Amino acid sequence: MSTITGYEVFDVRFPTSRSADGSDAMNKDADYSAAYLVLHTSEPELTGCGFTFTIGRGNEICAQAIEAWLPRLVGRDLDTLDPAALHREFKTDSQLRWLGPEKGVIHLAVGAVMNAVWDLAAKRAGLPLWRLLAEMTPEQLVDAADLSYLSDALTRDEALEILRRAEPTRADRIAELSKTGYPCYTTSAGWLGYSDDKLRMLAEEAVAEGYKHLKMKVGGDLAEDRRRLTIAREVIGPEGNLMIDANQVWDVNEAIENVRALADFNPLWIEEPTSPDDVLGHAAIRKEVAPIGVATGEHGMNRVLFKQFLQAEAIDFLQLDACRLASVNEVIAVQLLAAKFGVPVCPHAGGVGLCELVQHLSIFDYVAVSADLTGRVTEFVDHLHEHFVDPCQVSDGAYVLPSQPGYSSELRRTTLEQYAFPGGTEWADTDHGRTALETLDTRPTDGLRWAVGGL
Amino acid sequence: MSTITGYEVFDVRFPTSRSADGSDAMNKDADYSAAYLVLHTSEPELTGCGFTFTIGRGNEICAQAIEAWLPRLVGRDLDTLDPAALHREFKTDSQLRWLGPEKGVIHLAVGAVMNAVWDLAAKRAGLPLWRLLAEMTPEQLVDAADLSYLSDALTRDEALEILRRAEPTRADRIAELSKTGYPCYTTSAGWLGYSDDKLRMLAEEAVAEGYKHLKMKVGGDLAEDRRRLTIAREVIGPEGNLMIDANQVWDVNEAIENVRALADFNPLWIEEPTSPDDVLGHAAIRKEVAPIGVATGEHGMNRVLFKQFLQAEAIDFLQLDACRLASVNEVIAVQLLAAKFGVPVCPHAGGVGLCELVQHLSIFDYVAVSADLTGRVTEFVDHLHEHFVDPCQVSDGAYVLPSQPGYSSELRRTTLEQYAFPGGTEWADTDHGRTALETLDTRPTDGLRWAVGGL
Repeated sequence: MSTITGYEVFDVRFPTSRSADGSDAMNKDADYSAAYLVLHTSEPELTGCGFTFTIGRGNEICAQAIEAWLPRLVGRDLDTLDPAALHREFKTDSQLRWLGPEKGVIHLAVGAVMNAVWDLAAKRAGLPLWRLLAEMTPEQLVDAADLSYLSDALTRDEALEILRRAEPTRADRIAELSKTGYPCYTTSAGWLGYSDDKLRMLAEEAVAEGYKHLKMKVGGDLAEDRRRLTIAREVIGPEGNLMIDANQVWDVNEAIENVRALADFNPLWIEEPTSPDDVLGHAAIRKEVAPIGVATGEHGMNRVLFKQFLQAEAIDFLQLDACRLASVNEVIAVQLLAAKFGVPVCPHAGGVGLCELVQHLSIFDYVAVSADLTGRVTEFVDHLHEHFVDPCQVSDGAYVLPSQPGYSSELRRTTLEQYAFPGGTEWADTDHGRTALETLDTRPTDGLRWAVGGL
Repeated sequence: MSTITGYEVFDVRFPTSRSADGSDAMNKDADYSAAYLVLHTSEPELTGCGFTFTIGRGNEICAQAIEAWLPRLVGRDLDTLDPAALHREFKTDSQLRWLGPEKGVIHLAVGAVMNAVWDLAAKRAGLPLWRLLAEMTPEQLVDAADLSYLSDALTRDEALEILRRAEPTRADRIAELSKTGYPCYTTSAGWLGYSDDKLRMLAEEAVAEGYKHLKMKVGGDLAEDRRRLTIAREVIGPEGNLMIDANQVWDVNEAIENVRALADFNPLWIEEPTSPDDVLGHAAIRKEVAPIGVATGEHGMNRVLFKQFLQAEAIDFLQLDACRLASVNEVIAVQLLAAKFGVPVCPHAGGVGLCELVQHLSIFDYVAVSADLTGRVTEFVDHLHEHFVDPCQVSDGAYVLPSQPGYSSELRRTTLEQYAFPGGTEWADTDHGRTALETLDTRPTDGLRWAVGGL
């Protein structure tokens, strides 16, 4: 019998705030981080790796929450470890559920653990995750999807119908994507903290590399937003797609006013115009700024929120996040909802490792759920990929189909030794590390690992 | 100069699951718990005590999150420590904000820390918290309230207008409540896990004690729900108020069907019929089950959610929670929203310590915000009050006005020695403790304290 034998949890942090990478109107000093776990098994070399993404302080809280879910996994038989059943087991732990329910740290932690479980399942099957999913039957997929609280918008039968409609032509779309890749756009040029020269240079590079979309951060000073958008529109040209992203800094009426003041740049969408929880606010904004589209979802806490965004006709683009939702089980549910309502899913990515994950989700979405590329484009940021064992590949503005087994979620051991907080070489005995530690009343670890069990 | 000199954090758990106290359709085995902190100061005997409430496992995650906010408080001058400014400082920590934003564990932790800060402010002023608030001007209260993301529903001027209207008659209402107390209802009889005999006995006791409302848990087997409601309606009589509480177990259409099947018991409200995040779902249910009212809020994650419940006309009773919201700053904002929309606030209580907190909030609401008792009744559960230094007092179905300085949030030291997890005498070397520890890969503490700083 093959079993899960133990686990390691790491608080991994990259000191990205040094270079203003990732800076926007809300998040001025992000240290891209991953609360990361490795499930070890009794099979040689077989592990399951997963994480949730944070931007620095508080990553240790996610590590603590991940730890809370893990002891029960040690000793489980890999042959009977069903990700759908495990997800239901996590959802029905009433004591831990209280901390959300289904939102915030405890939900991020379920996402991280289930990401590792799906990685393990795909590696054991010898398939990249997107293909593992694309080989499941409609019935298996609906069983894996978390459809609870959704039946007023999407019944199980409707979900099955969507999947069955796409099933006969899955192979055609896999063949198509094998040639073209899955379309993506880049945010690499658009961070608020970059100078005009750096912005223009990066935007020109992006266009030269084949991108047809550019996304710019806005929401600081309006005159500066206009100056930066002028450069971006010049570079992408009148026919190119320019998106703007306010990262939640506005109240509803402020958002309407400010987006109207930027309407002459003809943006494709305004992203995160206000609180990510405000379904009715987004619906009001969408009505007032049309034909500019409204996009949100990177802080979309769970499927019940997305259900309402769709029911209220509040969004034109649904930007789910691979780590904010509780892994593949909840992602499939949201993809099915979006397909029912005819709204394109354009996942959020960037940070650390989000690109590695969402490529699998977008490819699966097209192959087995939406069967449509209209209006679809998935985020890509060229950042920190070198830390992954199986980094995503982008070519001509498209994600190349991953071919290695798993969810592309495994960090290199050398990265853990360098960036684990606070014991990694990048943090221990450095000025940046000492500053970060002032705000962390840290606990004893073995230096690199937040927690270890069973090993 | 008086300063904050240090802090202690405790993971306090009461093994209430042994007696099925607190059992409902969602939460079958709650161990009522508090992630609790004490702020120590340079003034003799002056501390600030606060907590958030959980139901067992995961309480350590909240303790970890509380710890993340505390190092920055050590050394602060008490004379310049403004709870409103501190709340804004917490809200603008972008790295920790990512973990919510404003929801789940990180928001519970802000609530716990700010509860301690408000307790400290009230103790230093020598006033019970409700009176400290009732002596603030409308301008001071609006400055303390967190009105961000609310301006499409409630402007600052509208908030001021509500408070100014009530200001001249505050003293009258304080005099009134000093005689009558603030009306409450009891859930003590209604837990799902109790036998019919125990239910009838407790319900009869409640009526004898002067209560005019009884709340019953439903959402298990429909025939059992009907049998238990028959007993409760017999005891409270045809004119008494009977409420039912499903604790989120239904989908939207299931909720409509099941509430209609219980309509002949003439319930005043159905509480938590479905996901606490589902604004549009509650609106649909309310429309279909009228004239039965819809109530929710104990899992209401933040003011943006409550804004939408009110905008969508989704609820008849708003049941905010003193620990789920980010303390007094967010509670005042929600009370102001509710006053604007004319919906009564009937706070959630019970658990451990929630009654101690919400009595202050309800009294303040009547004195300075709503100026109205119509439809208002605050929950009370007769449970675990003996662990508090200043326990709430109930008489003739009403909370007696607290008179001691502070927020009534301080636990007895003997309680900490007995119930701190895992080192307290109730947990260490007991069977119940060993079972609980199997699911916690716990960390080293000094036995009783999760974290200590500055002392």
